[in-house]
Amino acid sequence: MPRISNKGLNMPQSPIRKLVPYAEAAYKQGKTVYHLNIGQPDIKTPEIALDAVKVHSLDILAYTRSEGSDEYRNKIANYYNIHDIHVIKDDIIVTTGGSEALLFAFGTIMDTDDEIIIPEPFYANYNGFSTASGVNIVPVISKIEDNFALPPIEEFEKLITPKTKAILICNPGNPTGYLYSKAEIKKLASIVKKHNLFLISDEVYREFAYDGAKHYSIMQEDEIAEHAIMIDSVSKRYSMCGARIGCLVSKNKEVISTALKFAQARLSPPTLAQIASEAALQTPQSYFDDVIIEYVERRNILISELEKIEGIKVAKPKGAFYCIVELPIKNADNFAQWLLESFDINGETVMVAPAAGFYSTPGVGLNQIRIAYVLNKDSLVKAVNILKEALKVYKD
Amino acid sequence: MPRISNKGLNMPQSPIRKLVPYAEAAYKQGKTVYHLNIGQPDIKTPEIALDAVKVHSLDILAYTRSEGSDEYRNKIANYYNIHDIHVIKDDIIVTTGGSEALLFAFGTIMDTDDEIIIPEPFYANYNGFSTASGVNIVPVISKIEDNFALPPIEEFEKLITPKTKAILICNPGNPTGYLYSKAEIKKLASIVKKHNLFLISDEVYREFAYDGAKHYSIMQEDEIAEHAIMIDSVSKRYSMCGARIGCLVSKNKEVISTALKFAQARLSPPTLAQIASEAALQTPQSYFDDVIIEYVERRNILISELEKIEGIKVAKPKGAFYCIVELPIKNADNFAQWLLESFDINGETVMVAPAAGFYSTPGVGLNQIRIAYVLNKDSLVKAVNILKEALKVYKD
Repeated sequence: MPRISNKGLNMPQSPIRKLVPYAEAAYKQGKTVYHLNIGQPDIKTPEIALDAVKVHSLDILAYTRSEGSDEYRNKIANYYNIHDIHVIKDDIIVTTGGSEALLFAFGTIMDTDDEIIIPEPFYANYNGFSTASGVNIVPVISKIEDNFALPPIEEFEKLITPKTKAILICNPGNPTGYLYSKAEIKKLASIVKKHNLFLISDEVYREFAYDGAKHYSIMQEDEIAEHAIMIDSVSKRYSMCGARIGCLVSKNKEVISTALKFAQARLSPPTLAQIASEAALQTPQSYFDDVIIEYVERRNILISELEKIEGIKVAKPKGAFYCIVELPIKNADNFAQWLLESFDINGETVMVAPAAGFYSTPGVGLNQIRIAYVLNKDSLVKAVNILKEALKVYKD
Repeated sequence: MPRISNKGLNMPQSPIRKLVPYAEAAYKQGKTVYHLNIGQPDIKTPEIALDAVKVHSLDILAYTRSEGSDEYRNKIANYYNIHDIHVIKDDIIVTTGGSEALLFAFGTIMDTDDEIIIPEPFYANYNGFSTASGVNIVPVISKIEDNFALPPIEEFEKLITPKTKAILICNPGNPTGYLYSKAEIKKLASIVKKHNLFLISDEVYREFAYDGAKHYSIMQEDEIAEHAIMIDSVSKRYSMCGARIGCLVSKNKEVISTALKFAQARLSPPTLAQIASEAALQTPQSYFDDVIIEYVERRNILISELEKIEGIKVAKPKGAFYCIVELPIKNADNFAQWLLESFDINGETVMVAPAAGFYSTPGVGLNQIRIAYVLNKDSLVKAVNILKEALKVYKD
């Protein structure tokens, strides 16, 4: 039998993949499982987006331009300008989700064995994209005690080698919920400028900034216009994860013309989803206001309920819809499995994402979990209560 | 300014990309341009597919499973079984177009600097996927004099090194229109078995087999079940290129479980397009019969018109909707540009794809073009006439 590649063997699995069979067994036993483990929001997609595809007038479902249709890119540019990000359509390549934008960015700026520095914990699929691209992630640890704020800039500098090509941040962060301040973005700007690196910022949660905080984009730092590559997506903003429409944005013309070559090889982003995404741009501000109110309420309930649990440490999220929680246990992998296999309250249990999979440094985050607060408030209260009762009896 | 990667610099451009500005200039001059250069069919998408998204009942446009929905994969498996390809849903991963299936296949079986043997001329984007994946294409020349039949198997064997991981074919072929015979597939099967290689077959034109010929898939060769990876797509079959739905199919469980890790990293194929693609599977046979009749008529007209041109060599296509034509000129790049810039008959001209971009060996195919017969018959006749008149006056 011919052999699988080392790359294939090294491709990481999702941090929750191991738990799926246990969740399925729990369903079979008739248990209700509260899913605190996933990033699929329960928020409704704006009707204007869903309706747009219902009234399409296509008789051939044809390719669009590889970089996305002009109309759509013009409208995205307009959206960004409203958010103080001054770009034009030619700075934008429409991609199949933020995922593809990351792959294009990695391919555009890194060769095999090049290095990218990422504050950890980070979105687990960054591991998959770097393995697929043949590049190496160099983690810099951010700490739950600091709410996962930007690590001191000296910690980044210690890690820079001739192979370092970029720093990647997720802002607001999955899995941390941390929103970088303008001062922190400026620190990153100065270091990428000093060392001539790219700065990639995954800003798919831009709209989810709480407590009156305003999201500050790397694209607002004119000084690093040639260094900055923004990754974006409609997935979370409009609760349309299944569209698979994202984009790569940069003022660096060489980055755009190179990423375009990757885009041309795969011909076109999905056409129907572009129709929905273009319509989604007309979503009224009230939709976002309602969503933010909902998430803030969920977050507040989640945090206040979690804080009732003894021995727990929580990083209060300022954005996105995740938070990392440190539990008074040794191994969250085992605990998560045990919750599904051996624990329930009146037939109800919870599924959580063990956080070790969000760290690149071995042995870090073993006693942490990531909670996605994408459930309604009642379910959240019930789910946290299950967690509380479970911790009373769990022994590891 | 930070540097672009070598990978990015090496990413090839589409063979027609250089011509696009000249085509745009021709439009501006008010010229009509017959596009013989593109693979976007003018055939209507089955209504059943287009209608399915009009009546969707989604209120959240959510992710599907990373490998595609169970329902859809079950139905694709059923489609294959009707075509004598005996697979089950677990052998199938739904991808974002055949493009992504190729990327997953390359990543699953090849590491940096590994080699894949491909008969040339081949689909130009294989160059892009191999550059993006960091692997090297080793071409084996097939000849216009042989209608681009499979090169002698000894020619493949000469090229096999310890780095060779796979042979890739496109069947029926883009850009050749060649349909491999059962005997040729068996020869390929024996060589991949002997040398323990993978055999990847891009079968997106399966349905387009003419003159009563029956497509024979590598998946029908039980002996190489562990070696065979089939690439497929709805793009051409249902004239829905913009859906971006394809799949990777293999009986090799390690291939599937590895490709699935690549699929999980990018979360989900497009949901709306899966709805359309699932519905497309109900397209009646009469649709394909009509399409085949149409393409055969187009091909026959195209070939008979081309054969009227002196000094021309044509490989008669047995499948797909492309053919390679050798012209009595030195350089098809210059000729194609000249057609757009400096030639017209009553304000009409043609755009063709220079074939050198479909070859990997430098200097081969310089006097060849690829014609896609995706225009209606009247336009084809006019377009070939323009070509004929142009060749009378062109000097290179």
